[in-house]
Amino acid sequence: MSFDASHLGEFELIRRFFVRDTGARSGVILGIGDDAALLELPNGSDLVAAVDTIVAGHHFLEGADARSIGHRSLAVNLSDIAAMGAAPLWATLALTLPSIDPEWLHGFAAGFRDLADLHGVTLVGGDTTRGPLTVSVQILGGVPHGTALRRSGGQAGDLLAVSGTLGDAAAGLAFLKAPRRLARSDVDELIRRFDYPTPRVQLGLAARGVARAAMDLSDGLVGDLPKLAAASGVAAHVRVEQLPLSLALRSAESSQARALDLALGGGDDYELLFAVPARRFAELQAAAAQLNLTLSAIGELRSGEGVTYSLKGGEFLPRVSGYDHFGRASTQITV
Amino acid sequence: MSFDASHLGEFELIRRFFVRDTGARSGVILGIGDDAALLELPNGSDLVAAVDTIVAGHHFLEGADARSIGHRSLAVNLSDIAAMGAAPLWATLALTLPSIDPEWLHGFAAGFRDLADLHGVTLVGGDTTRGPLTVSVQILGGVPHGTALRRSGGQAGDLLAVSGTLGDAAAGLAFLKAPRRLARSDVDELIRRFDYPTPRVQLGLAARGVARAAMDLSDGLVGDLPKLAAASGVAAHVRVEQLPLSLALRSAESSQARALDLALGGGDDYELLFAVPARRFAELQAAAAQLNLTLSAIGELRSGEGVTYSLKGGEFLPRVSGYDHFGRASTQITV
Repeated sequence: MSFDASHLGEFELIRRFFVRDTGARSGVILGIGDDAALLELPNGSDLVAAVDTIVAGHHFLEGADARSIGHRSLAVNLSDIAAMGAAPLWATLALTLPSIDPEWLHGFAAGFRDLADLHGVTLVGGDTTRGPLTVSVQILGGVPHGTALRRSGGQAGDLLAVSGTLGDAAAGLAFLKAPRRLARSDVDELIRRFDYPTPRVQLGLAARGVARAAMDLSDGLVGDLPKLAAASGVAAHVRVEQLPLSLALRSAESSQARALDLALGGGDDYELLFAVPARRFAELQAAAAQLNLTLSAIGELRSGEGVTYSLKGGEFLPRVSGYDHFGRASTQITV
Repeated sequence: MSFDASHLGEFELIRRFFVRDTGARSGVILGIGDDAALLELPNGSDLVAAVDTIVAGHHFLEGADARSIGHRSLAVNLSDIAAMGAAPLWATLALTLPSIDPEWLHGFAAGFRDLADLHGVTLVGGDTTRGPLTVSVQILGGVPHGTALRRSGGQAGDLLAVSGTLGDAAAGLAFLKAPRRLARSDVDELIRRFDYPTPRVQLGLAARGVARAAMDLSDGLVGDLPKLAAASGVAAHVRVEQLPLSLALRSAESSQARALDLALGGGDDYELLFAVPARRFAELQAAAAQLNLTLSAIGELRSGEGVTYSLKGGEFLPRVSGYDHFGRASTQITV
């Protein structure tokens, strides 16, 4: 390193690693460096705001790659914006670090920045403090007034659809915690799904005006679907045999029951769950295909309340429950 | 407690302690409970966004009162909004907790809520995670387009003015760390300044269109003033004998040198620092008086660069430097 990081203060720390000349793009009137950022929301837009924190040992493994942590901290927030059908615009970052490690910061900043650039997100505020590694990102986005996708818009009869494949990230995490002999290409793909989740921002935008409700699957289907059903005031039914499982997951998990556990209970995939009128499903599927993404119908909303599951026509009771970010053992996936 | 908090998940935790029926006020289209909040900014407003984190042992003492921590976590952010001359609107809260302690949460939520209510701020997003106590608040506000107070607007000849009194919070903190025999009423006042800082939101609003530049004194005058001077491209001079010291501080600190150290180097007062044209100083002072707040001229901006200090006409070199939130010992106040 060409500088002595031990002399860097908070202000300089943020500037050195995170601030770039962002010009006048993205409505940033005033970025990092004043008491607060000044931002101009596009005319006729509602503001969308979310916050998510990731903590070492809970949301990523101790010793995880700094670049992955930077990516993840933004990805989980972009996924919330995607689930609203909104366009991400700006982010603020609250970074608590045990010490200043320039190599770590370079990696973290690169992971954060690459994903931010991909989605046109500008970092407009930052705060660094000393303490146990904790990364809290607040994301701000915009959506044309009245068009946001909510969890509460679902209606009985709507198809339930999910993007991509489920369970991969959980399988990747399981491998990281307890490595075993598997095909390298499968392992790489599963770990990549955990370390570098891809928020489905473009699909969320495409679903606006097509889907009736949406949410992101951060906590696993069995944890998240009840929230959408309850918010919409309906019941939900899932046909478990229709869950989209990747080839990598099928290959890595020879037990079908175990693969289903991961697909049902595993969080961290950050795929989108939609309630979409049956007559518009093909339209949403085509939009996903344009993005090189599968969209799978996995069940439907029904009148009533609660969530039920079936496997090839018979009743099915998931062995797993959803992931609770407060870290109690509500996810019973054993590794 | 009438419930067993050990069963509370993240969602329920946030709901139970923080969510209230906020009706349709403050432009909240959709608050906590979906993937993100949906907010409507007043027409013609720029969005103002800031983030600040407080960590146990760095920004408050281990074992500090939960109510004070809740108050502080929002106050430091409101102060950033005040320094922009903006109106606070919404906040999100990222709360990392070592364990669920209902009594602690009640206190924290009460401290946060009372201050939020005072300023009409709605909590629109929350995230709770398990980990070492860290509180990160993101604040969002609005300001009529083009009217925000920046650090960079100061001009040579402008008066430097500060609200309230300086050094009280630092004196309160010093007492908390090393109690000694002092008049109870003085101690109470100084500790209150540290535990329950009052963000000068109304004064910031009143200063819009009057002051040329503003910032909040979170890191102490000697740490913060150079930032305003540099951003404005000018030099600054402070007449130390004009620093506003409270009666409590004067009474608690019999040594004038020590009182000046606290006033110059002590952070955490969250008073506002303004650069204001001399001919408009009286107007700003009158606005402060309306808010039962003093406004003191402490020096002026000059052409050039750097910050100089004088005491009764002679050169003065502060013995203290500013507070660096990354926690290195740049504040040399000994207690």
